[in-house]
Amino acid sequence: MRDVFVAGTGLVKFGELWDKGLREIGVEAVLKALEDAKVDLKEVDAFYVGTMSSGRFAGQEHCGALITGELGINVPSMRVEGACASGGLAFREAYLSILSGKFDVVVALGMEKMTDLTTEEVTLTLSAAADQEWESYYGVTFPGLYALMARRHMHEYGTKREQMAMVAVKNHENAALNPFAQFRNKITVEDVLNSTPVADPLNLLDCSPITDGAAAVVLTTKEFAERNGKALVKVSGSGLATDSLALHNRESLTGIKAAKIAAKKAYEESNFSPGKIDVAEVHDCFTIAEIMAYEDLGFVEKGKGGKFIEDGETKINGSIPVNTSGGLKACGHPVGATGIKQVCEIVMQLRGEAGERQVKDARVGLTHNVGGSGATCVVNILERL
Amino acid sequence: MRDVFVAGTGLVKFGELWDKGLREIGVEAVLKALEDAKVDLKEVDAFYVGTMSSGRFAGQEHCGALITGELGINVPSMRVEGACASGGLAFREAYLSILSGKFDVVVALGMEKMTDLTTEEVTLTLSAAADQEWESYYGVTFPGLYALMARRHMHEYGTKREQMAMVAVKNHENAALNPFAQFRNKITVEDVLNSTPVADPLNLLDCSPITDGAAAVVLTTKEFAERNGKALVKVSGSGLATDSLALHNRESLTGIKAAKIAAKKAYEESNFSPGKIDVAEVHDCFTIAEIMAYEDLGFVEKGKGGKFIEDGETKINGSIPVNTSGGLKACGHPVGATGIKQVCEIVMQLRGEAGERQVKDARVGLTHNVGGSGATCVVNILERL
Repeated sequence: MRDVFVAGTGLVKFGELWDKGLREIGVEAVLKALEDAKVDLKEVDAFYVGTMSSGRFAGQEHCGALITGELGINVPSMRVEGACASGGLAFREAYLSILSGKFDVVVALGMEKMTDLTTEEVTLTLSAAADQEWESYYGVTFPGLYALMARRHMHEYGTKREQMAMVAVKNHENAALNPFAQFRNKITVEDVLNSTPVADPLNLLDCSPITDGAAAVVLTTKEFAERNGKALVKVSGSGLATDSLALHNRESLTGIKAAKIAAKKAYEESNFSPGKIDVAEVHDCFTIAEIMAYEDLGFVEKGKGGKFIEDGETKINGSIPVNTSGGLKACGHPVGATGIKQVCEIVMQLRGEAGERQVKDARVGLTHNVGGSGATCVVNILERL
Repeated sequence: MRDVFVAGTGLVKFGELWDKGLREIGVEAVLKALEDAKVDLKEVDAFYVGTMSSGRFAGQEHCGALITGELGINVPSMRVEGACASGGLAFREAYLSILSGKFDVVVALGMEKMTDLTTEEVTLTLSAAADQEWESYYGVTFPGLYALMARRHMHEYGTKREQMAMVAVKNHENAALNPFAQFRNKITVEDVLNSTPVADPLNLLDCSPITDGAAAVVLTTKEFAERNGKALVKVSGSGLATDSLALHNRESLTGIKAAKIAAKKAYEESNFSPGKIDVAEVHDCFTIAEIMAYEDLGFVEKGKGGKFIEDGETKINGSIPVNTSGGLKACGHPVGATGIKQVCEIVMQLRGEAGERQVKDARVGLTHNVGGSGATCVVNILERL
């Protein structure tokens, strides 16, 4: 099996990008990634485009060809989707397509344009990631689903409201150091606890925002990856798993089974154990989700996630820095783009390009991208050679 | 590179399936395909689900996990989308994923539930396959886009209105022999010419219908494929190409460049030339589209497609039988399912299982699946060993 490398990253600043359309931000991210990789557009063999709901957010399905058409090329391109894990899936398909031997240079793009709709329309659109017939139809929204998980986690493990708030505080702290982030303001635990209630126990500052954004990476063979003279970053492992869309069919509410299975696979493929991870980007769509991620990924024992954040273990100078980008909470969460943004952040960290938020001596990084309330999870492990 | 085989097919009868939901028809097709392949659900390594716009048709994104969740398994599963070529893309990704060496048994499923919306809502939803900002927003719908192509084809090559009608007549004739088809009634050229005008020169009977349906295939290695004792059907070539979403940026209106590029690739990979194809399923979303397909696929010289149908060359007993299933026109066109249904039909033909519509001694078959007005095209070539 051939080795696959991430040779270039391209990010469009996350935020409310009212002066740009979906295709503009997608193309901008692609061109930046190609420039970083020192690969010419004509050398790209294929594209995978992750977007959750461009059909409802922008009235535009068929985003694979939207991007290649705008770039004026005719190569294979398709959209892949698994709700908020769509970016992670695009990355994974790009990876598999190079392993297949059919392609040498593949771009994985994630993008979403969410702010052109009203908040109500966005909430309704996002609810299509849950089980329409068993959940969304009855009015439950994503904050509601994660609130159920949070309550159960508090009940079973004594996880505290303040510990959840600390996730948001840390991620805003990190975003303050990230020029691509949507929210670069620092906040306090009190700010989170006093913010507007959304779905008890989750308040506004426990929730990731509505964001426009795009991110792209170039995956390729060693030969192409060596071209830009930067440190080589190899894809060492990738795991994908699924579970029931509806929460009521899951084995547990306090963890995400798909994440555990995907992580196990990625650890096995890469031969790295959780203790070997130097930096991770995890799917903190709600603060409780980051605490569950610590546990699902094996960074800490089940039920100890709350204490893990409280002890500062996941800060930039902690034992496993998590969400140095600011995470979904503060970097922003353009749903289809998030999985690729996570890879961009990890590549920047492994190359030593993360500026003020650089993790010292980071050599192995992990991304954890979740779809819906946990029915899809992609975990990737990247390694600087 | 390892060989990949199609070991099982599963079809749900196409039509107005008001008593079944999206997940029911998807699961039904999967279970039928597994039964045909004599493969157990527990042996499946991954799923690819093609659906164009489940988010708008059914309020349900995240259909990869929708299916595995309903089946009660946790394996990798994702949705892939390229408008009406979504099924073809699911097939292709399943194929590449086996080539990658990561998986041995993969199910490609295509499905769409379209009839729960009003005709106006369906038209609006389908228009998201065209360029929203440059086409759909200004009111052009798919019959309009294909009518432009038809007019130009008539102008440049003298293609006759009656020749287009003959495509519909032939495909209804074939559908009459296909128990899975939506419309099994025979029609005449006069019926087509006298049917309600939709977008001049296209009338109602030139257009594929609105359909619910699902189709699945099992792709696997030789070892697994031999298990059911049926004839071995190998994937000999696969091509995918894209082009501008908007017609006004294309090089020509009288042919689909993405189809020509995809076909060239599939012919090269398989070492078959157009003359070696014994049976083909092509994307006749409108009658003119089948005529252009004859030309784009090299079955006949450019501009001679009209005469090709008139001469009966593509009838079941012709030189290259096309759309023995009844095609999109008469078998029905549940957009995401069509690309997989095409593969099912070809596999049945190559195995000699096509009953009354069986093509004699069919050994090599081709599928041609188009997204939108031609911005995506997947061409696959299958061969009975």
